[in-house]
Amino acid sequence: MTDLAPEQYRVLSIQSHMVSGYCGNKAATFPLQTLGYDVDVLNTVQFSNHTGYPSWTGERLDAAKVQQLFDGLETNGLDKEYTHVLTGYIGNVDILKTIENQVKKLKEKRPNLIFVCDPVMGDNGRLYVSPEIVPLYREILTVADVITPNQFETETLSGIKITDLASAKLAAMKLHEEGGAKRIVITTLTLPSDQVPTAVRSDNGKATLDQPQPLYCMTSQVSDDGSILQHLISFPTFEGYFTGTGDLFSAMTVARLQDYPHSLAHAIYKVVCTVNAITRLTWEHQRKNTRRAISGKPADPNNVHACELRLIQGRKHIEHPDMTSSTILMTDI
Amino acid sequence: MTDLAPEQYRVLSIQSHMVSGYCGNKAATFPLQTLGYDVDVLNTVQFSNHTGYPSWTGERLDAAKVQQLFDGLETNGLDKEYTHVLTGYIGNVDILKTIENQVKKLKEKRPNLIFVCDPVMGDNGRLYVSPEIVPLYREILTVADVITPNQFETETLSGIKITDLASAKLAAMKLHEEGGAKRIVITTLTLPSDQVPTAVRSDNGKATLDQPQPLYCMTSQVSDDGSILQHLISFPTFEGYFTGTGDLFSAMTVARLQDYPHSLAHAIYKVVCTVNAITRLTWEHQRKNTRRAISGKPADPNNVHACELRLIQGRKHIEHPDMTSSTILMTDI
Repeated sequence: MTDLAPEQYRVLSIQSHMVSGYCGNKAATFPLQTLGYDVDVLNTVQFSNHTGYPSWTGERLDAAKVQQLFDGLETNGLDKEYTHVLTGYIGNVDILKTIENQVKKLKEKRPNLIFVCDPVMGDNGRLYVSPEIVPLYREILTVADVITPNQFETETLSGIKITDLASAKLAAMKLHEEGGAKRIVITTLTLPSDQVPTAVRSDNGKATLDQPQPLYCMTSQVSDDGSILQHLISFPTFEGYFTGTGDLFSAMTVARLQDYPHSLAHAIYKVVCTVNAITRLTWEHQRKNTRRAISGKPADPNNVHACELRLIQGRKHIEHPDMTSSTILMTDI
Repeated sequence: MTDLAPEQYRVLSIQSHMVSGYCGNKAATFPLQTLGYDVDVLNTVQFSNHTGYPSWTGERLDAAKVQQLFDGLETNGLDKEYTHVLTGYIGNVDILKTIENQVKKLKEKRPNLIFVCDPVMGDNGRLYVSPEIVPLYREILTVADVITPNQFETETLSGIKITDLASAKLAAMKLHEEGGAKRIVITTLTLPSDQVPTAVRSDNGKATLDQPQPLYCMTSQVSDDGSILQHLISFPTFEGYFTGTGDLFSAMTVARLQDYPHSLAHAIYKVVCTVNAITRLTWEHQRKNTRRAISGKPADPNNVHACELRLIQGRKHIEHPDMTSSTILMTDI
């Protein structure tokens, strides 16, 4: 893809749509557009707001309707220019299967298309999709070029429980071997602090007010000579209620891979800088606009609203993230 | 609205959505977000592409489903912060009625909400919505704060045929009197060149290659003392096939009204500078990527695609339009 000028990148992003608030396509589209990408936006649902609110209205498309949209694009030759496909939360197994088939077709037309797949299945030890989604994502790994699972999803896909750095590295290796995706990003990883290389310890293990515990992101890349390069990135966390950060992360991954086509670690370092800055902005807004720091799902819709990602207000961090933060550190592992 | 910081503006934009290409909400959302506006995006349809292509797939919502989305927003208190409502092409009379009722409710909650309504009904002497839409838009004029009809729509709403500057001024006056909207923008107006004040004649009446005929935009504003201020803006036109320029125009109107709260003419001058620059970019792209200059609906979908608005690529013209063009001129009339 590196032979193209940025303005020739064309992403098909298949995610949910909320009238109000920022997750799914509403979290992915604006950042990519801001960086000059044409984005074709296929909305698998249209809800009034995300499902972290006490209630929501709206409709989901079924697989047949998603296929009809693909067909419309194909009939008009609009799908032949896609340089990237991006997918996020797809709760429906039939839609996911439809997407898998379509991506295979798109790759036949354009073999160097990059498929960035966020295999959203669950978090914190809990699966929130139907169990039949899991084997389907294992299958999709063979089609994906870049995957962005969190720790739980990595464990679920690899069958390896991550308890330390060694098991995290092993899980990524296994996904490379079995799945085929050459670029894997474990987006959030909790590690015992004594297991973490000194190079990425910004806080000497001490938690601070806005850093209840450091979090890590791990990249694993099969390089051209077949060797595997793995890196660990540490970043501060904020105690609060956040939605859409994962969708922002995967969208920024699409863009930064083009900035650093040969180094997944450097691409993801830049992604983390943006996502962390927007998370901080959002956290500051939450603290100002909710009665107390929120963790867990807030019951009051006004509080959920106050927790929406400050994406529009954080645009400068999308365009020009501060890459010199002393609290975002990277090392090879 | 001028007491708010830009980042507190919150627009509800109710328009169509295309997976691929730029019209409806895809033409309105990115420009507003780029200028710092939070936009709640309610999609009345999701089509694969716009209906200027030989074919398209996708679905329209019905009025009940639109109402459900409004209800979801209301239940979660998400609609109480809207500073603006923006509507574009709504082909369905029931949906339009639903929107009218909802805007009335929103204005009860927040009386200074600004409703920018593009009463899309037709162009070039041809109505392309069902005739029952016309009286409904006449009714909606009493709720709208700003309307952006083209020449044909102005004629249709006012019942006055526009043949010269005097009849254009009269039509706007009649809409002020009967409709109530204090700010009217006739977005495109064809005038005999000998009727046009010298101050807005950049070409001395001569058409050039990229200026087959000059076009005009007229603003009409009821000022605080009840007097009516009217201005004429001339701008170059480009021979080609354009869709979404009207949707970009009305979205930019939302933003520029905040830059110039007391002068509709100055706000719209800035809007025209952006829309014209993006039209030029699009026209240049069309000339490069289609076999010949296209006017009228192209039969080949590749050509329609090549005519899509260069919105993402023209971002700088959204942020910082060149306001010193010698071909975009304004005068009071």
